[in-house]
Amino acid sequence: MNTALAQAYYAQKEGKTVLVTETGAGQWGSALSYAAGMVGVTAFVFWVRAVYNWKPDRKVLMQMYGAKVNASPSPLTTSGRKLLERNPSDPGSLGIAVSEGLEYTDGSSERVYCLGSVLNHVMLHQSVIGLEAIRQFELADDSPDLIVGSVGGGSNFGGIALPFVGEVLAGKRHCEFLAAQSESSPNLIKGEYKYDFADHAEQSPLLMTYTLGHQTMMPPIRADGLRYHAAGPIISALRHSGHIRAVAYPIDEVAVFEAAEIFLQSEGWLIAPESAHAVRAAIDEAKRSEAKGEEKCILMNISGHGFLDIDAYRTVLRIE
Amino acid sequence: MNTALAQAYYAQKEGKTVLVTETGAGQWGSALSYAAGMVGVTAFVFWVRAVYNWKPDRKVLMQMYGAKVNASPSPLTTSGRKLLERNPSDPGSLGIAVSEGLEYTDGSSERVYCLGSVLNHVMLHQSVIGLEAIRQFELADDSPDLIVGSVGGGSNFGGIALPFVGEVLAGKRHCEFLAAQSESSPNLIKGEYKYDFADHAEQSPLLMTYTLGHQTMMPPIRADGLRYHAAGPIISALRHSGHIRAVAYPIDEVAVFEAAEIFLQSEGWLIAPESAHAVRAAIDEAKRSEAKGEEKCILMNISGHGFLDIDAYRTVLRIE
Repeated sequence: MNTALAQAYYAQKEGKTVLVTETGAGQWGSALSYAAGMVGVTAFVFWVRAVYNWKPDRKVLMQMYGAKVNASPSPLTTSGRKLLERNPSDPGSLGIAVSEGLEYTDGSSERVYCLGSVLNHVMLHQSVIGLEAIRQFELADDSPDLIVGSVGGGSNFGGIALPFVGEVLAGKRHCEFLAAQSESSPNLIKGEYKYDFADHAEQSPLLMTYTLGHQTMMPPIRADGLRYHAAGPIISALRHSGHIRAVAYPIDEVAVFEAAEIFLQSEGWLIAPESAHAVRAAIDEAKRSEAKGEEKCILMNISGHGFLDIDAYRTVLRIE
Repeated sequence: MNTALAQAYYAQKEGKTVLVTETGAGQWGSALSYAAGMVGVTAFVFWVRAVYNWKPDRKVLMQMYGAKVNASPSPLTTSGRKLLERNPSDPGSLGIAVSEGLEYTDGSSERVYCLGSVLNHVMLHQSVIGLEAIRQFELADDSPDLIVGSVGGGSNFGGIALPFVGEVLAGKRHCEFLAAQSESSPNLIKGEYKYDFADHAEQSPLLMTYTLGHQTMMPPIRADGLRYHAAGPIISALRHSGHIRAVAYPIDEVAVFEAAEIFLQSEGWLIAPESAHAVRAAIDEAKRSEAKGEEKCILMNISGHGFLDIDAYRTVLRIE
């Protein structure tokens, strides 16, 4: 909600009435739908078709917030129609949904595009998470040795990490950073550091990122919010400068979903599959420290719940 | 969780390894499943069959907590088998699920029955809600004129209301109390004040309650947690003494689900259908006060989220 509310607020102030966006897992689409309603405008969501099909409940939730929701690729745009002609059941991707959203936005000055990750202003809005975490650690008179977050485009990770990174760069703090990714889209690990488009149809500005290529096919995973070809420019720069380590987990998602189950049994609530990657990485790091007899204070970032992803948990964990 | 944790804790201390219970909507079953896991024992849940069938995701959630979940009536008990012989697709009820649970508990000294509402110790554990609310109002330097909660057995309502009731009875506070019910089971409105069983098969002790009759058929609703024939003894006594007003909403649930939609759009999250009854009543009361030009501070109690009830919202609100 941190960047959804900010983007909706400024869009409404500029006289826009329709907030166009992409969504993968559907968490960002839900957040922007709610934010749009709060400022009296409407969200118009292009939702990766594979996920749209398997999460009917999240579609209803966005509609209850007042949003219009479309499966992407859609027949509403030239780029969508082109893909549907080639393959009527194209599963879509975040890059395709962004392309459709940008094209649809061009159709009217009432519309504005709101991106949910990658860009610098998104990281800025999300950084309230890290600012609050710094205050919380002050209250607890403690300090994290390691900060872990999941990374697709990088907004979740950037939100918690960047305020700490600032202090590390200024020499005020020692802290490590670990990005948890999926082997479906390990952009920080297997990507090339270069200028690339943020979208499939090459309508975005070029961004300097670790990228797998903006038209690369990535295997579908349940944590679709991570399935994006490039990490945001700030995250990529920090990776390039050696400030961020990265790890990627297999696309069968068993290891990460088991981590979510452990979290559920200890904390009581079900987290989103994306965040489960961060929890898996945090558990692995904690076990490694324990084995070495080291104490380590690990801060992990979790965003979004997984109550609308239970069918994914059932399938992956083979619950009868 | 307030009474789930307390009941699980004491059961484990007494050497029990299986916590047997009933559940209607599934919220209580989920809470006890989590609490059981936290103290290292197992929950064994008899779940009203109609709801078991329409909420497969909540079943998976209870299983992820470590629980064993059965549709009720079940073939595991004499009372269940008797009902299934008569009607193999008997939709069940909370009263039937309690009967099966009590019978199943009798089968082993390892087992103990944990009831989720009605009884005095449940109200006691839940009263932490009202105690905290009193502290919060002190911090806000305010005081509620009206407290609203939904009532099936009465634990949710009792939890928030009883600490305030104590102060009202002691002459320390003025405050009204309103119970929001479903016309499916308006026990405080159409019930008779008398001794009755808490369960269908007459295995419970007799309780002095407002009751519709322990074998009365009540029309199925989505807010199944409210569909119970009798309000708990303390709530019933306060109704009898004139301290609690009650209102009941139609079984099509349109009015209450619309209230949940209003709440979603303003507060961002989806509440359980049971709690939607309290929100409807609070909105209606607020509108009435507004029309009269009166200021009224209304405190309403919400328990449980509705993210696993979206199919119900979709159906009732006719969302395409």
